[in-house]
Amino acid sequence: MKKIGIVGGTGYTGVELLRILAQHPGVQIEVITSRSEAGKPVAELFPNLRGHFDLAFSAPDSQLLKTCDLVFFATPNGTAMLLARELLEAGVALIDLAADFRLRDAELWRQWYGMEHACPELLAEAVYGLPELHRDAIAGARLVANPGCYPTAISLALLPLIRKQAIHWRGIIADAKSGVSGAGRKAQLSGLMAEMGESFKAYGVAGHRHWPEIMQTLGQVAGEPLGLTFVPHLVPMIRGIEATVYAPLRESGADLQALFSTHYADEPFVDVLPPGSLPETRFVRGCNRCQLAVYEPQAGGMTVVLSVIDNLVKGAAGQAVQNMNLMLGFPETQSLMAPAWLP
Amino acid sequence: MKKIGIVGGTGYTGVELLRILAQHPGVQIEVITSRSEAGKPVAELFPNLRGHFDLAFSAPDSQLLKTCDLVFFATPNGTAMLLARELLEAGVALIDLAADFRLRDAELWRQWYGMEHACPELLAEAVYGLPELHRDAIAGARLVANPGCYPTAISLALLPLIRKQAIHWRGIIADAKSGVSGAGRKAQLSGLMAEMGESFKAYGVAGHRHWPEIMQTLGQVAGEPLGLTFVPHLVPMIRGIEATVYAPLRESGADLQALFSTHYADEPFVDVLPPGSLPETRFVRGCNRCQLAVYEPQAGGMTVVLSVIDNLVKGAAGQAVQNMNLMLGFPETQSLMAPAWLP
Amino acid sequence: MKKIGIVGGTGYTGVELLRILAQHPGVQIEVITSRSEAGKPVAELFPNLRGHFDLAFSAPDSQLLKTCDLVFFATPNGTAMLLARELLEAGVALIDLAADFRLRDAELWRQWYGMEHACPELLAEAVYGLPELHRDAIAGARLVANPGCYPTAISLALLPLIRKQAIHWRGIIADAKSGVSGAGRKAQLSGLMAEMGESFKAYGVAGHRHWPEIMQTLGQVAGEPLGLTFVPHLVPMIRGIEATVYAPLRESGADLQALFSTHYADEPFVDVLPPGSLPETRFVRGCNRCQLAVYEPQAGGMTVVLSVIDNLVKGAAGQAVQNMNLMLGFPETQSLMAPAWLP
Amino acid sequence: MKKIGIVGGTGYTGVELLRILAQHPGVQIEVITSRSEAGKPVAELFPNLRGHFDLAFSAPDSQLLKTCDLVFFATPNGTAMLLARELLEAGVALIDLAADFRLRDAELWRQWYGMEHACPELLAEAVYGLPELHRDAIAGARLVANPGCYPTAISLALLPLIRKQAIHWRGIIADAKSGVSGAGRKAQLSGLMAEMGESFKAYGVAGHRHWPEIMQTLGQVAGEPLGLTFVPHLVPMIRGIEATVYAPLRESGADLQALFSTHYADEPFVDVLPPGSLPETRFVRGCNRCQLAVYEPQAGGMTVVLSVIDNLVKGAAGQAVQNMNLMLGFPETQSLMAPAWLP
Repeated sequence: MKKIGIVGGTGYTGVELLRILAQHPGVQIEVITSRSEAGKPVAELFPNLRGHFDLAFSAPDSQLLKTCDLVFFATPNGTAMLLARELLEAGVALIDLAADFRLRDAELWRQWYGMEHACPELLAEAVYGLPELHRDAIAGARLVANPGCYPTAISLALLPLIRKQAIHWRGIIADAKSGVSGAGRKAQLSGLMAEMGESFKAYGVAGHRHWPEIMQTLGQVAGEPLGLTFVPHLVPMIRGIEATVYAPLRESGADLQALFSTHYADEPFVDVLPPGSLPETRFVRGCNRCQLAVYEPQAGGMTVVLSVIDNLVKGAAGQAVQNMNLMLGFPETQSLMAPAWLP
Repeated sequence: MKKIGIVGGTGYTGVELLRILAQHPGVQIEVITSRSEAGKPVAELFPNLRGHFDLAFSAPDSQLLKTCDLVFFATPNGTAMLLARELLEAGVALIDLAADFRLRDAELWRQWYGMEHACPELLAEAVYGLPELHRDAIAGARLVANPGCYPTAISLALLPLIRKQAIHWRGIIADAKSGVSGAGRKAQLSGLMAEMGESFKAYGVAGHRHWPEIMQTLGQVAGEPLGLTFVPHLVPMIRGIEATVYAPLRESGADLQALFSTHYADEPFVDVLPPGSLPETRFVRGCNRCQLAVYEPQAGGMTVVLSVIDNLVKGAAGQAVQNMNLMLGFPETQSLMAPAWLP
Repeated sequence: MKKIGIVGGTGYTGVELLRILAQHPGVQIEVITSRSEAGKPVAELFPNLRGHFDLAFSAPDSQLLKTCDLVFFATPNGTAMLLARELLEAGVALIDLAADFRLRDAELWRQWYGMEHACPELLAEAVYGLPELHRDAIAGARLVANPGCYPTAISLALLPLIRKQAIHWRGIIADAKSGVSGAGRKAQLSGLMAEMGESFKAYGVAGHRHWPEIMQTLGQVAGEPLGLTFVPHLVPMIRGIEATVYAPLRESGADLQALFSTHYADEPFVDVLPPGSLPETRFVRGCNRCQLAVYEPQAGGMTVVLSVIDNLVKGAAGQAVQNMNLMLGFPETQSLMAPAWLP
Repeated sequence: MKKIGIVGGTGYTGVELLRILAQHPGVQIEVITSRSEAGKPVAELFPNLRGHFDLAFSAPDSQLLKTCDLVFFATPNGTAMLLARELLEAGVALIDLAADFRLRDAELWRQWYGMEHACPELLAEAVYGLPELHRDAIAGARLVANPGCYPTAISLALLPLIRKQAIHWRGIIADAKSGVSGAGRKAQLSGLMAEMGESFKAYGVAGHRHWPEIMQTLGQVAGEPLGLTFVPHLVPMIRGIEATVYAPLRESGADLQALFSTHYADEPFVDVLPPGSLPETRFVRGCNRCQLAVYEPQAGGMTVVLSVIDNLVKGAAGQAVQNMNLMLGFPETQSLMAPAWLP
């Protein structure tokens, strides 16, 4: 039985980690920290977990965390980097669900996140936790940067096309839409249902932190920087991301369906839908699955890839557990296979 | 491995049965019938089930159904009663998720459902599948009438009070609210999101079929007919039922919290919340759980019980699996313990 | 052209006042105050008003307010009472959309609102602004307490029954449901769409501030205190209140439809629907209208009244403008007659 | 007082026409036809219109329609073309809210709409009713094809860029998102709230009828066919369209804000937002307004235009009334200036 710690468990990725780990036979939550909720039973804050956890939140305490085999950071950006060195030195494996270790370039990180990086020397070691791209490295890693939600949906949509050099590197558009849980569990006017409900909007058009992350991931595969425009939007629903990705084809008429099916043939969590399919975010709600459909619409010359995930699962906590399974030697799919419910 | 059949699997209770049974280690779906979708793979109609079922819908065929140990009817009212006798005689156990066997009085059934009952002689044998009331009888039954969604939420809210004779039998109000999936998977104007979204309404005020069902269940416990007014409402959400039940207390100031906690102490799927709690339907979404809170508000003399369930789980498919577990000798909670996800 | 001031215009009742007054030919907004947004153009905070107002928010300034004919307080509870005396003495008429002048008993007010009343001597003068009950007094008033949203919906549902002594005074239940805008424009976790969406719950069961207000209004009409239990609920939609009100009839079988139709025959904003109707909150969304339907369901002996309003219009800003029209001598319906839009 | 007829008034564009025209001082609805609802009062089908219309639906009758000055067709595609010639010959002006007269090429129309055009000789005469492009022609027209909802939002976003030749003609992407009312008031499974709610999806990726319409409108302005990819999506909300339009700039760094502001300086219904704005569909809900924001995100070289409208107003009934105002000589903005309400 592996001992698990969770730092910052009061947000949406925290409660989602707890939900998934509640059914994992190989792990035990030793500690879950929260400065603001210390002392409160987890199941009091999250009544969906009544009967599943006796645990209470505790004040952050690195000694306790050092007794764990693996610690998840479900914290705001800039938190994991403060504790990472100490925990790694104590032999604890780390998965950061925030952005501290996603960019390999400390200067780029500073520009986008507005603070100095506290342990730039760890950036080279950190593995970007997209198993479909770095499975082996993750299995051997002690520090994993769990990918952002948009980067997961968009990277999985473009990877096969880039690998096969099927598209031009310029003029790529990623138009992504997210449910409101992506904004986190924070008291803010803009997140009120009276502000978000029954409305749709773009945001972050001038620049969003997930853009350099996508550029880094896909640029590495392409071998050079891509010309990619990324615009996120907010959908009046709680969970789910849909990305519609447009890329100019080098050659019209290629068998894109086969390209995708082959590329993802062995992936347990990437599901390439039959030709003509229209993935809906609800098909993967609550699941660690990405569903993809690929088209070359009749105008021709441009491919359109539709990609859906649950932002809190494959886009956060589920992918983190997938990474944990790889790192701790569990079957990769352990506790991640329950079907979504419809409706 | 028990062999299971599902008749009429294209509705919301059908797909929910499939989702829950997909993870049940002791059963195998032998056949799932649908006249309209015969030949279509289940996972094509319900893409959340891709990778979980290879099965296709088949045309109704009683021979095939007779090879099953247990058959669920997830059909419109008036369907199960046409096949029940034949299947029972073949030694197949039945759980009807519709209303054919819920009322013990064939004449009353005719009045509310607008057709003659096809096998009134089976009504006496049918067990009303509310395990919290009839656990032993269910375990020994071959024909179970799965309760309606409102009757489940309301009966569980009132049972402790009636058993203890804590309330008057007159002036009881059950004001219930349901998500729109309760109206079923039917092409109808009134179910459109453009008609249902961002709006709230009462319906069935003049009379709703669940009223005689509640009256029967609770009247049996009370030993005489109750004076109960039931008004259902539609909430612009997909899943969930909340019932706010009002009953005049025989004696003000009794320890209602203790009464409820004691009554449900051993129930795996009824969760009495601490004093002052406010159950939300999302706490039990996707779960086979009823959460209850009990109050005597300050005016005094009237108790208010808040009861939440997921209409498709504890109010339909989950309770059906709970009944199946009892009937087939599985642990009652098998495959029904995954926590709800929040948010 | 009458000069109008609005104190505290950044909340939902503030922007709704602006929307309605934007089309009023007889008034001009002189000043709209906000401590936090002083200097910001109104149309920047509320882009729906672009092109309709050049006005900017200004810091609170009683001198400026004194130049107005009438001032609306769209502020938190406890604000209007601090300025009321000064403005009244300057000859300014006041409408408070908050609760400062709703209860006539200063001690009762202190109990429910947790602060001493700053000008208890004005409570006797203040007119409770429900035109359907106090039209003449409102027309002659200089200080109007605009009713709460729930009290409006519930009082209109019960008034005809109480006036005619058609119901018993005990065992009355008001089960009310509100859209989330009722919680106001405040940064708070509990109002997030990720917390409110796709879920339904009761709240304030132990006691809600609108209960004494309803008790006062209806008790005055009945001539004695009523035995009324009130439970509010939150609906995952933005606007709208539905109240389902239950009251034991003194005599079964009375012509309740005629009773209601007669009572409200001349009311421009109360619409008694034909027998068998089911009012939906969307039918009155954006409108200053209350739609009512009355039933005696088949069990008999209990009447059920369904009442819908828009909480921000007839439940707040619309009723405030209706009161303003009465106070300033405009036609009562001025600027309040645009139909709701469907869907 | 002009006499107006509406053919097919039971859909969402029909009821929206009625709502807007209810407040128009210069017109009177003479007749509103519906085969299925003949005899039923309009206000019974649409209770938001109670007190605004005494009219009942009547069976289609071309004699009655011929007495009108102008007839709106709010019918399915293929209906208006059957009556157009007869009504035009009788001197009646026509506005078709469906697609019968949108494409100038009868063969192209046949391909996309799957039927022969009944009066191809009228296609050359029909004016495409986008006032921002064809105001004068509309004012002089007797037959106007009211634009599709997506084409309105997308054309208004691209017109200034094309007029100024600021963008390349290839690699243009229009990623559009619509509320569910766009699917119409039709009993169909796919429109159920239980299917649409809490989910997001693309549709029509392989080809959508609005694509040739957009291509025609913009190609005429550009002087040659554009390379434009259009993908529509469904948002779980009732009203609103957002289009995010991407176009490669001929020259990076141009003052796009000035270009848009100048282009639309005199347009009453196109509102170019200040730099950095993020239009939300709710800002224009219920309004005949298009709000636009224009960006060149930091990657550079690609412009992003955000465009929001209400699909039922500027995207349908509101634009139809705007066209009617032009055709009948009323002020263009008559009855179209009420602000949207927030929240």
